[in-house]
Amino acid sequence: MSDGTNGNGSKSVSPHGIPADGIPKLRQEWIARRKAEAARTGDGNMTQMHYARKGEITEEMLFVAEREKISPELVRTRVAEGKMIIPANINHPELEPMCIGVDSLCKINANIGNSAVTSNVEEELKKLHTSVHYGADTMMDLSTGGDIHGIRETLLRHCPVPMGTVPIYEAVARVKRIEDLSAALMLEVIEEQAAQGVDYMTIHCGLLVQHLPLVANRITGIVSRGGAILAQWMAHHHKQNFLYECFEDICKIMAKYDVAFSLGDGLRPGCIADASDEAQFAELKTLGELTRIAWKYDVQVMIEGPGHVPLDKIKEQVDKEVEWCDGAPFYTLGPLVTDIAPGYDHITSAIGAALIGWYGAAMLCYVTPKEHLGLPNEKDVKDGIIAYKIAAHAADLARHRPGVQDRDNALSHARYTFDWEKQFELSLDPETARSMHDETLPDKFYKDASFCSMCGPKFCSMNYSSKVDEYNKQVHGLEKKDYSELVKLVSQK
Amino acid sequence: MSDGTNGNGSKSVSPHGIPADGIPKLRQEWIARRKAEAARTGDGNMTQMHYARKGEITEEMLFVAEREKISPELVRTRVAEGKMIIPANINHPELEPMCIGVDSLCKINANIGNSAVTSNVEEELKKLHTSVHYGADTMMDLSTGGDIHGIRETLLRHCPVPMGTVPIYEAVARVKRIEDLSAALMLEVIEEQAAQGVDYMTIHCGLLVQHLPLVANRITGIVSRGGAILAQWMAHHHKQNFLYECFEDICKIMAKYDVAFSLGDGLRPGCIADASDEAQFAELKTLGELTRIAWKYDVQVMIEGPGHVPLDKIKEQVDKEVEWCDGAPFYTLGPLVTDIAPGYDHITSAIGAALIGWYGAAMLCYVTPKEHLGLPNEKDVKDGIIAYKIAAHAADLARHRPGVQDRDNALSHARYTFDWEKQFELSLDPETARSMHDETLPDKFYKDASFCSMCGPKFCSMNYSSKVDEYNKQVHGLEKKDYSELVKLVSQK
Repeated sequence: MSDGTNGNGSKSVSPHGIPADGIPKLRQEWIARRKAEAARTGDGNMTQMHYARKGEITEEMLFVAEREKISPELVRTRVAEGKMIIPANINHPELEPMCIGVDSLCKINANIGNSAVTSNVEEELKKLHTSVHYGADTMMDLSTGGDIHGIRETLLRHCPVPMGTVPIYEAVARVKRIEDLSAALMLEVIEEQAAQGVDYMTIHCGLLVQHLPLVANRITGIVSRGGAILAQWMAHHHKQNFLYECFEDICKIMAKYDVAFSLGDGLRPGCIADASDEAQFAELKTLGELTRIAWKYDVQVMIEGPGHVPLDKIKEQVDKEVEWCDGAPFYTLGPLVTDIAPGYDHITSAIGAALIGWYGAAMLCYVTPKEHLGLPNEKDVKDGIIAYKIAAHAADLARHRPGVQDRDNALSHARYTFDWEKQFELSLDPETARSMHDETLPDKFYKDASFCSMCGPKFCSMNYSSKVDEYNKQVHGLEKKDYSELVKLVSQK
Repeated sequence: MSDGTNGNGSKSVSPHGIPADGIPKLRQEWIARRKAEAARTGDGNMTQMHYARKGEITEEMLFVAEREKISPELVRTRVAEGKMIIPANINHPELEPMCIGVDSLCKINANIGNSAVTSNVEEELKKLHTSVHYGADTMMDLSTGGDIHGIRETLLRHCPVPMGTVPIYEAVARVKRIEDLSAALMLEVIEEQAAQGVDYMTIHCGLLVQHLPLVANRITGIVSRGGAILAQWMAHHHKQNFLYECFEDICKIMAKYDVAFSLGDGLRPGCIADASDEAQFAELKTLGELTRIAWKYDVQVMIEGPGHVPLDKIKEQVDKEVEWCDGAPFYTLGPLVTDIAPGYDHITSAIGAALIGWYGAAMLCYVTPKEHLGLPNEKDVKDGIIAYKIAAHAADLARHRPGVQDRDNALSHARYTFDWEKQFELSLDPETARSMHDETLPDKFYKDASFCSMCGPKFCSMNYSSKVDEYNKQVHGLEKKDYSELVKLVSQK
């Protein structure tokens, strides 16, 4: 995985110390050739779905197939069907293409971005760096304060993964009152962001005026920011959601730049009591209807999901989404499986995320420990990402994806053979694993020791267990299976 | 919940600053009366199961019924059947009785105890305090170094929750070599610990010599410390597990003091690759056989479970345990759902723990972030406990236990109405929630603010959503449900 801010040491540097040119542009030539061809043929639809449906395997599809170790034809087929998306704006050449869909590894998204209260472009660029370093598959810039356009430009030019936004935030920042929002303003903002290179956009176009009465009995009402803004607009004007009404106009912009829809769940439940209610499912059905319209324009779509859901109601979330949205990739926030742990909602939600990933969600939007309490800082971002790498990997293991258990096996073998260095190296967060070990046994000597401070030398089970291996060999003629080749292979990856 | 070290300020204090007398002795009179009666009738069986089977509802059962808000007769019936246990040694009068069983709330256990490499009695007492404060339902003292007997005595006298041990650790500390262990020594250690007041003991009596060849293909062999010790003993002597052979003698001691068995899973899987293998299930079947023998002596039993298990194999763990062990409470370690996150295994395992609790495990043994790397310190203990409170509560929510969602609802209502103080108060860890909020908005003014630094004043969904409530009232005549009474009720608990 490349790193959004590495390898630019010798480039020109802005007054803020940020490299001005951004990272290398992997897709530049692919896009240039494709744009030229589009001009020649007069076909202005630049989406991966459009090419897939024409039977064409793009460079992006090839790149994805190699990363995922699946066939390019499978990628093309799934993209054509809408069951996999490759968010890849034609104006985001820095992107290393990836895919989102249940036939590929489970992905995680990290939200960054400032608020009017705190943070700035340097802080956000650090968060981007941290996120990509620890394995975020996509990023969302949710900035709502200050120079929203400028922050996004800097982030995009340093972002090797797809970047998403929620355009209504910038639209709100441009008006005085919510009720001044309009379809025209939103289309303007969407086109500007699309032209900058945003790869996917959350649009809350499925929350309809007739859904509003359905939230009356909720404890936490409407918790999606975009959803609540649109609901207030509808409540003020007594009119239908203007994003629903201008949906086909939005599709045309998305098709031109290949921006994928992330159809927003404005009515996602914000607490356990509100989970899986009529309001949520009414919106989900509408999202299915809009998915089919977007697909007419060959525009890629994923569907956003909850939120707060108890363990026993998670499976039906996936089942309904697959049924009503014709298998469009499901992109969920958590879900959080209780409401009582502010300060630890990366854990509360990683539980639900692992489960929903196993059931078939394609991408998990992380939640940081700071959720409900404040804007995440760089440490919160890291903690959220690690929790979600765990959840996504647990889901991949449970779905028996080929090769996905190799790293677990290699790390476990290193554990059994007291290869501490290898154990750290194969960890999701080597520095933390090492520092925890070294907290009690810092001396280099202990890196070869056949014990740690948890049990001490006389109580290490792995130590005793190796004597059972000898017994099995001598008495039963059973040789312990050799896993050392696997460790070597995994380390080379 | 009382607190192991509170309220002793005026008592005599040891040279280490530890109150010498311990905490109040709630059960003292109950036990004295029962002992006198036992002497009169010549019935030396003091177990809760014994009384339950005679049709007697003990003070402990009444206490438990009130805590759990279930009927005393249900408690008695389940204890008589072996489907619920009340670990309550007659020499642990400081105990506030609790129960473990699927008809009651899901419980969590915290392991503390020193190793030969690190920690001491003051450190361990602090960990006990922290554990009880944050809601550990039981504790295990797994000390393996130094003055094991003395540490245990101090902990027991300050412990209001059931305390468990693994007696083989002390036995090993008393011999020079593992092969010197014997049934006689183990019976001696078990009786000494029982006389001190230990409420439950992990005994690895189901790991048989014929199971040893079954681990030959495992990556991590035998990872249970007790299991690995016994395996080495068997491998050395080419004899059957002496704890299996003297099991009925152990039952007699357990009956005399009312120590519950925690039948150890010496062959629990230590990595994803080894999960649910023949070795593990062969031992589980043996544990079922031993359960039925213990029950002949009216001795209470719970069954220990894994370990490392991928999400898709967790349900069968519970199903097999219930079938083979006749519904004896299942007490699981995690399970961890991947191997790749050392440093974060409280999260990796909380995912599995929530799931197995939902499926029917009665108690979840916590795992700290330090697992596999070193002995947990006080902060690790706290982090492990919070992760497991989340898991257990998620399981209780999914099992629809009466009243269990009240706290979630009350906290969510406080969130919606911007009652920040109430939101912190109802959190699992109020200090952490408060400090995260205050990191960006420390001023007292912001404790009434209708936003936080995550979204800032212009982007708070809850703020907009309240305007939708007005719309629903005016246009649809729909009044938002009032949850304020619930918040009051929950706060008084």
